[in-house]
Amino acid sequence: MKDLPEGCIRRLPLYLRQAQRYSDSGVDTVSSKELSEDIGVSPETIRKDLSQFGEFGTRGVGYNPEKLVKEIKSILNLHSTWDLALVGVGNIGSALLTNPEFEEGGFCITLAFDRDPEVVGKNIGGLEVLDVEEMTSRISEEGIDMGVIAVPPGNAQSIADSFVEGGVTGILNFAPVKVDVPSGIELIQVDITCELSRLAYYTGEKLRTKEIEDNYLGEE
Amino acid sequence: MKDLPEGCIRRLPLYLRQAQRYSDSGVDTVSSKELSEDIGVSPETIRKDLSQFGEFGTRGVGYNPEKLVKEIKSILNLHSTWDLALVGVGNIGSALLTNPEFEEGGFCITLAFDRDPEVVGKNIGGLEVLDVEEMTSRISEEGIDMGVIAVPPGNAQSIADSFVEGGVTGILNFAPVKVDVPSGIELIQVDITCELSRLAYYTGEKLRTKEIEDNYLGEE
Repeated sequence: MKDLPEGCIRRLPLYLRQAQRYSDSGVDTVSSKELSEDIGVSPETIRKDLSQFGEFGTRGVGYNPEKLVKEIKSILNLHSTWDLALVGVGNIGSALLTNPEFEEGGFCITLAFDRDPEVVGKNIGGLEVLDVEEMTSRISEEGIDMGVIAVPPGNAQSIADSFVEGGVTGILNFAPVKVDVPSGIELIQVDITCELSRLAYYTGEKLRTKEIEDNYLGEE
Repeated sequence: MKDLPEGCIRRLPLYLRQAQRYSDSGVDTVSSKELSEDIGVSPETIRKDLSQFGEFGTRGVGYNPEKLVKEIKSILNLHSTWDLALVGVGNIGSALLTNPEFEEGGFCITLAFDRDPEVVGKNIGGLEVLDVEEMTSRISEEGIDMGVIAVPPGNAQSIADSFVEGGVTGILNFAPVKVDVPSGIELIQVDITCELSRLAYYTGEKLRTKEIEDNYLGEE
């Protein structure tokens, strides 16, 4: 398959989730306009994204949600569930372990590791937390392809290294630090404080605009 | 100030965090090359981003981390701490309440709400959880400008509406659903399952490449 633009890959999961919701509620057909209203992406973009994969919908009729789910799952490599290994069962890690969204999305954390003796052996979200010393061997034994890093910044690189050693190909990193991985490994970072900083920039700008408008109205 | 490109606004928090780390460890000067190695953004992009704000560094010498921190904080509207209101103290909400990164980044959750009677009144991360019924009045009284939504998808829109009613200007939404806000309100969504789906796409592609290479080697 040809390489897809990053924007499209970011939107496909939104189409998938919404199509799944339509399908679950028994909706037969959905137009790009309806889909647009429910997910906040323009109908033109939706049509352009989906037209790349051939005949998804019927012109003038719309898309069949069930078919959409099946096709997008196949494009995103979500036809079967991905088993994940999580390292770091602190605040974010525990939240991930008990997140119902993951299962619906096709992801299942099957191994969880921590280095804190008080956490190792505990059962969180139905899973026993294992000692991080075992991570490379266990990941390799179970053939896990995807790992999640939820440890403090100072330990993130060594966990990434162990993931790579254990044979993981994709890593989601929640630690607020850059980690280096070989070129055959895919790494995506989720950085909540960066998102808040971005929000601060835009919010500050909007507050300034509001202030200027208020002052202007006050002068009338 | 002129509008900054989105990419630049996404990178500025990374520069800021790293500059703060240099500054904390007593580093006097840092080159764009060193900064590049530590955060994984090319030196050209760093120089281009920072040159927009005037004379940040000295040609051939580098940037002063302390000055960098001060200037980027000013650009991102982070010169003083932002007080945040959080709604939904479930798994993600609790993780946010106890996240040390927030404070370092200039954010402080000062109000937390939930609708579960078993959670209301509890002290989490040093903060008493309040009844969500009070949220609009409390946010408005305290003059909170930024809110965080960490409730299930079905309740996200009504929480967003209450935030707007209470006078909030910026919203960070962790609920995996689109919420509508008026044009004067800034909304940023953090969608962990979407990030995992994106990772699944890239990981699947890399696994396929690996398989093809392995088969090819096997034939030799």
